[in-house]
Amino acid sequence: MTRHTQRPANDGESDEQQSGAEDGFDSLLPGLRRRDFMKAGAAVGGLSGLAGCTSLLSDEGDGTVSAAPSHSVPPGEVDEYYAFLGGGQSGDVRVVGLPSMRELIRIPVFQRDSGRGYGHDDESREMLEEAGGYTWGDTHHPRISQTDGDYDGRFAYVNDKANGRMARIDLTYFETDAIVDIPNQQGTHGSCAQLPDTDLIFGVGEFRTPIPNDGTGDLHDPDKYGAVLAAIDPESMNVEWEVLVDGNMDNGDGSKEGRYFFTTGYNSEGAVTEKGMTRSDRDNVKAFDIPRIEAAVEAGDYERINEVPVVDGRKDSPLNQGDDPVVRYIPTPKSPHGISVTPDNEYAIASGKLDPTASVIQIDKIDEVDDPADAIVGQPKLGLGPLHTAYDGRGHAYTSLFIDSQVVKWDIEEAVEADAGSESPVIEKIDVHYNPGHLIASESYTEDPAGDWLISLNKLSKDRFLPVGPQHPENDQLIYIGDDEAGMEHVKDSPAHAEPHDASICHRSKLDPAKTYDPDDLDLDYTDEGEETMERVDDDRVEIEMYSTRNKYGFQEMTVTEGDTIEMQVTNIETTSDMLHSVAIPDHDVHMRVAPQETRKVTFTADEPGVYWIYCAHFCSALHLEMRSRLIVEPEE
Amino acid sequence: MTRHTQRPANDGESDEQQSGAEDGFDSLLPGLRRRDFMKAGAAVGGLSGLAGCTSLLSDEGDGTVSAAPSHSVPPGEVDEYYAFLGGGQSGDVRVVGLPSMRELIRIPVFQRDSGRGYGHDDESREMLEEAGGYTWGDTHHPRISQTDGDYDGRFAYVNDKANGRMARIDLTYFETDAIVDIPNQQGTHGSCAQLPDTDLIFGVGEFRTPIPNDGTGDLHDPDKYGAVLAAIDPESMNVEWEVLVDGNMDNGDGSKEGRYFFTTGYNSEGAVTEKGMTRSDRDNVKAFDIPRIEAAVEAGDYERINEVPVVDGRKDSPLNQGDDPVVRYIPTPKSPHGISVTPDNEYAIASGKLDPTASVIQIDKIDEVDDPADAIVGQPKLGLGPLHTAYDGRGHAYTSLFIDSQVVKWDIEEAVEADAGSESPVIEKIDVHYNPGHLIASESYTEDPAGDWLISLNKLSKDRFLPVGPQHPENDQLIYIGDDEAGMEHVKDSPAHAEPHDASICHRSKLDPAKTYDPDDLDLDYTDEGEETMERVDDDRVEIEMYSTRNKYGFQEMTVTEGDTIEMQVTNIETTSDMLHSVAIPDHDVHMRVAPQETRKVTFTADEPGVYWIYCAHFCSALHLEMRSRLIVEPEE
Repeated sequence: MTRHTQRPANDGESDEQQSGAEDGFDSLLPGLRRRDFMKAGAAVGGLSGLAGCTSLLSDEGDGTVSAAPSHSVPPGEVDEYYAFLGGGQSGDVRVVGLPSMRELIRIPVFQRDSGRGYGHDDESREMLEEAGGYTWGDTHHPRISQTDGDYDGRFAYVNDKANGRMARIDLTYFETDAIVDIPNQQGTHGSCAQLPDTDLIFGVGEFRTPIPNDGTGDLHDPDKYGAVLAAIDPESMNVEWEVLVDGNMDNGDGSKEGRYFFTTGYNSEGAVTEKGMTRSDRDNVKAFDIPRIEAAVEAGDYERINEVPVVDGRKDSPLNQGDDPVVRYIPTPKSPHGISVTPDNEYAIASGKLDPTASVIQIDKIDEVDDPADAIVGQPKLGLGPLHTAYDGRGHAYTSLFIDSQVVKWDIEEAVEADAGSESPVIEKIDVHYNPGHLIASESYTEDPAGDWLISLNKLSKDRFLPVGPQHPENDQLIYIGDDEAGMEHVKDSPAHAEPHDASICHRSKLDPAKTYDPDDLDLDYTDEGEETMERVDDDRVEIEMYSTRNKYGFQEMTVTEGDTIEMQVTNIETTSDMLHSVAIPDHDVHMRVAPQETRKVTFTADEPGVYWIYCAHFCSALHLEMRSRLIVEPEE
Repeated sequence: MTRHTQRPANDGESDEQQSGAEDGFDSLLPGLRRRDFMKAGAAVGGLSGLAGCTSLLSDEGDGTVSAAPSHSVPPGEVDEYYAFLGGGQSGDVRVVGLPSMRELIRIPVFQRDSGRGYGHDDESREMLEEAGGYTWGDTHHPRISQTDGDYDGRFAYVNDKANGRMARIDLTYFETDAIVDIPNQQGTHGSCAQLPDTDLIFGVGEFRTPIPNDGTGDLHDPDKYGAVLAAIDPESMNVEWEVLVDGNMDNGDGSKEGRYFFTTGYNSEGAVTEKGMTRSDRDNVKAFDIPRIEAAVEAGDYERINEVPVVDGRKDSPLNQGDDPVVRYIPTPKSPHGISVTPDNEYAIASGKLDPTASVIQIDKIDEVDDPADAIVGQPKLGLGPLHTAYDGRGHAYTSLFIDSQVVKWDIEEAVEADAGSESPVIEKIDVHYNPGHLIASESYTEDPAGDWLISLNKLSKDRFLPVGPQHPENDQLIYIGDDEAGMEHVKDSPAHAEPHDASICHRSKLDPAKTYDPDDLDLDYTDEGEETMERVDDDRVEIEMYSTRNKYGFQEMTVTEGDTIEMQVTNIETTSDMLHSVAIPDHDVHMRVAPQETRKVTFTADEPGVYWIYCAHFCSALHLEMRSRLIVEPEE
């Protein structure tokens, strides 16, 4: 597919079809943009029909207005933000509207999804096949591409921890358009970018294995194992280079000016048991110096393994001995897990997981200090099990406390100014339910966070929802953080399918999804009404090209012979948005979606004689049920 | 599996773990049960923090209270109802809480779902394989089992229109436990029961094909095609008998006293093109007389096709010539689609689809009248594209109007009393957005509907949500119908993944899901800590039985040889609810979930030498990341 490289701002283009709102959604909040929205809770509340609607918001009706704008988006209005949530072991990315927390769409990434026809048409099926052929993935960290330190709405990237892969989602069509199987890496965790322009995507290797992991050498001795950071070109999705490190890694984040990529890692011990991995009281944060690594690659200072240049970034590597190390190992307390860079690019903050502190690393000190430990300029005590940190753009950090089941808000500069442990920069804590993993604030990963909403992605929900059997939903809790005086307000519990990890939240003005396909973006030829063809191209191969529209397919019947392979290509010639069709074939495991102006192809074998009714599974009109075509499979003899 | 046969009422049993609500959820609305809830909107509003929160609810704060209780369920409270929605071409059933419209859990039925491990462990994988091996299905009509005309909370049943199947969901564990591939039937549409005790489940055949459809006979002549109704035993899930009919069928519903099963059908013409299927101005509703059909089966009046007794229920069948026909064909206007029986069992109401009326069939007249048309006692004009009808238990019907994009509320007795067309029983219409298919009111399918909430399952959403590309979500709109004076109130838009069709709504007091597994309900042996075994049972076969718990598996490493088949059985020995683990194996396409007290088994082949880190994908503790085990696959030579 050829795709745009620049996206215009979402202009709220109106939909020409159907009754309803005449204008695009932005007209519903006239003149309000993100910054105004944050400052105009009362006005927005007024637009939404006034008054909040949770028990936390009191005194409506007596003239006072709660600090939190209503999170209930009334019928006819739309959400302010898109949140992209990694679906975890479900293998998808979910798009949730904020503040309503309604799931707007699921984007299948590493698994098939017949609701979208994903993995059912030839192109997506081949993409999944070429990426290993696995039927699932473990999506943790969806990140949206940035230009100049702000979301550009072009792509999202997400990792597969299970199978060491990275995927790209095209945000014009909200669909996965590329997957790369990362060589030499198992347990791809963080999936983050070189900022400010998303010049590289990083896959972070969590599981230490032999490299190459092909059964050669000593499989049993963990001292022979390693883990790599993988740098992926965001356009070609090729793995450009990798860096071998000591210990392991899990989360990561990039500094805002493009120089560093940071990772945490809990297994500096290089151990293979829980006890071994938690033996040491100190692990480290790794600061990858991207320009120096690229210089090393340029200079040929690498070993090519599985076709990828692998730079030696271990502590004792020659590349780390001089004044310009490629990787600095910054010692931090026991088993750090989360790491994120502050919006102003001053600090990278890593949380201790098995230690109650966060480590505040001053970025411009990393290359100045002799002892990397001296780059740590603050180490506030936050609570038990601090995992991840988000930002509001007003100097505050919000850290999830897994064991305490809380979110703690703290002042970053106060943490730097205070002697570690002697004075607390903690401003406030709020209970969440229960055991938060990641948390995310609106646009926290950009240089200019919005500072209004925060989602705590809680791992357990227990009794927070109606019981639904032994597998409870997770609980994504919405917290308003827009009013420092009133403090954090927990306004909503949202059940979630297993299992959101990280998320990115993007203002709606920065995305401009297409309403129909642009046929020029697709590889297959458009087949208009009257252009349908059916041809036997070989003894046992039939090619069909046809259109679909309300309420018919290009052919009302297709006769083939038992054993034939059928290549069926279908164009949805509708120009009306939301007017989807599909090609569902009983007993042939085919469900191909065709959205307006989309052309897709599916290849299948007709191996059982009989009559099979091809039908449209997307309800499209009052004559939808009659939108059918007969596939007649005649016996071979 | 051996399962309970009776469920106690949900007693709101408290969860012993974790901080949070001390009591079960029912204590949150003390003393309130469904009926009270409906009458106590103001009181409930008060509990929820007062005041509504949509633009439709005005004047809060001035002493007046809206007719609709708040649909926003505040943190710490739970929903009043479970709604089970057929996921359409996604192949799942979704459980949504009412009135919040939050998706509580997805139950995969016909597709694999790594978020639940469904289709990944041996048992569920084999179930899918034995049911045809398809990777998707098309779930339309989830119905909950009833006893004495009310939901008993034991099972839900749902059809697969795509591949002619019926599935059962065990509501103790909220998981699919049986799937039957229905012989002689293509396009299984309705999936409804013989009431009041769910003695049979009916699969309704929509697509006319040769029977048997094995390539014998004339495949091209539609006059040789047929469609059958299939009756399935709800316990064994065996197809007991089928009835061959003239024309086709799509939706269905059972009368409340067990005698009739009704189906609509739009293709009495037996045509194979859209034009042909819509040629006739009249089609029909079929009333299947269940006792007479069973008597015919008992008497041997059937032909056995694909091992199923098929009774001839065509118009010219000898079984339809006397005074006790097995099927009555009741002529109705053009292409009827929806049909449902009123709660008092007086009427079956079928909607015209291509005709603006509904046909009110008086059930006790069916066997009395000479001309079946005389059983139709009312035919009110409702609007354009009437599809489906739900009930509030107060004598009103609510019919979706696909073309008008409205829901119409009308008085059933007035429709019967008026001369057809001369006087309108229509009470009120409300716009929905856009093009509703099914609609469902709370407990509408029982003898005692709750009459408070209604969901309109709209096929198009267009501009109602933030744009997410060419595939828009559907829009499930929540409407309050509890106040006849105030009229219907549309209170919420809920985006939905493709594509909800029918739904059933059940009060929470009627379900009692398990919080952990009962090991006695499972076929596999429990493996406690200390009981783990690993054994080579054959040259190339290794059997492993082990436990999982925070934060380890029974074995910290497992060494096998390239080419080995590994049977790995895992018991989650946790007794704490919501404390799930899983077995994720990189590059082996394994993701097996084990919920507390659950034992599952997965069989896979280790075909590539190397080191693979088995890990837990359900975040379970601060040491979750360290919960790993090494699978070492040594080279064959």
